[in-house]
Amino acid sequence: MTEIMAQNIYDTPEFFEGYSQLGRSVEGLAGAAEWPALRALIPDLHGLEVVDLGCGFGWFCRWAREQGAAHVLGLDVSEKMLARARAATSDAAITYVRADLERLDLPEASFDLAYSSLALHYIVDLAGLLAKVHRALIPGAHLIFSIEHPIYMAPAHPGWSVDREGRKTWPIDSYQVEGPRRTDWLAKGVIKQHRTIGTTLNLLIRLGFAISHVEEWGPTDEQIAAKPELAEERERPMFLLVAARR
Amino acid sequence: MTEIMAQNIYDTPEFFEGYSQLGRSVEGLAGAAEWPALRALIPDLHGLEVVDLGCGFGWFCRWAREQGAAHVLGLDVSEKMLARARAATSDAAITYVRADLERLDLPEASFDLAYSSLALHYIVDLAGLLAKVHRALIPGAHLIFSIEHPIYMAPAHPGWSVDREGRKTWPIDSYQVEGPRRTDWLAKGVIKQHRTIGTTLNLLIRLGFAISHVEEWGPTDEQIAAKPELAEERERPMFLLVAARR
Repeated sequence: MTEIMAQNIYDTPEFFEGYSQLGRSVEGLAGAAEWPALRALIPDLHGLEVVDLGCGFGWFCRWAREQGAAHVLGLDVSEKMLARARAATSDAAITYVRADLERLDLPEASFDLAYSSLALHYIVDLAGLLAKVHRALIPGAHLIFSIEHPIYMAPAHPGWSVDREGRKTWPIDSYQVEGPRRTDWLAKGVIKQHRTIGTTLNLLIRLGFAISHVEEWGPTDEQIAAKPELAEERERPMFLLVAARR
Repeated sequence: MTEIMAQNIYDTPEFFEGYSQLGRSVEGLAGAAEWPALRALIPDLHGLEVVDLGCGFGWFCRWAREQGAAHVLGLDVSEKMLARARAATSDAAITYVRADLERLDLPEASFDLAYSSLALHYIVDLAGLLAKVHRALIPGAHLIFSIEHPIYMAPAHPGWSVDREGRKTWPIDSYQVEGPRRTDWLAKGVIKQHRTIGTTLNLLIRLGFAISHVEEWGPTDEQIAAKPELAEERERPMFLLVAARR
């Protein structure tokens, strides 16, 4: 378990500085290109009890309250992120709690929506976490999350290549070899957990979730017009968005 | 519609000869590496009404009867394949009918299992076909199919590459660009329809199917030990297997 805690890389100065400068950290939800697609999956939040698994700076928690959520519980392993999240609001209906998602403890049948943005691909015991999330949701409640797409995570050396005709490609290998992938992203040695789409969906189905939407996110024409560098996201998906119901 | 019929490439001498020599054509189900995984999704067939969409030489239809299916309807667009399928059995409970899956006509609420092996990725109007299949299934009935995996289909020039370290990779591009892919497989100009996994699953969900299993097929250790050339299938998935219930 020491090793798992060692992967709270967010609080290392190097990672935190880099992460703080990402568009999605500075601009919030509007700085995340996949947010409009993820937002489209979220039900009317009026009066709902919401938990955010890996809340970071709390952008989603504050947005959920603006949308009418009754209470929002924001969980994150990063002290530094939670400190900034707490400083950004005085809303008593948002509660931030430090929690290691590998050892989560949630009350039973208490939430209408569990949300998670780009956090679950760091989790080693995803089956254990999702079982706890299932128990924490009331029947009919929603689970909506994004993770890095396995096409993005699978390769031993993820990155673009250029073929003989000058076409940008994303060479894949090791897709069926599930498990840790060590990459240097903002800091050296960030460990992510590669799983096929099938593995993730079948895990949800076995736990009793009904899959309601699966999206291999890509930019819209409007997004590419506004931000031409997004065009390469058409070549291979970077994010996987999933919605399910308990 | 003429163009769609033109894609009955199976009956061209070139394609038919090549296809007839594939392992799965000569050995039947045992010659298809993904068959054990697909078979594991199939319910007890005793007394069930089964339809096979794209039955080819009828290997699955005959197997389904051996497993106790009450009746099996095998549909295929290829006259030549159906002729061989008919010649291979005298079982009156198997019916072979020539049908273009783009313009299928099936009786309502009549089948307990709709099965399809590597045929649906040729279909242009997949939404139309699956809507008809949904209507043709009784409530609770199964839809089980395999298609080529979108990772396999997406690239403009699908094929292996070797990176600087000598690692075999499968370069992807155009993953988000859904639509026709023209390849030379057994014959020149075979047209397949590339769709993301999300598109296929969301189509099923919108029609009222509940997704019960999604598998990006890869070989087992035993399969690789018996047939070492299968090892490359670990690098990228070739097939997508899906099970759903009406």
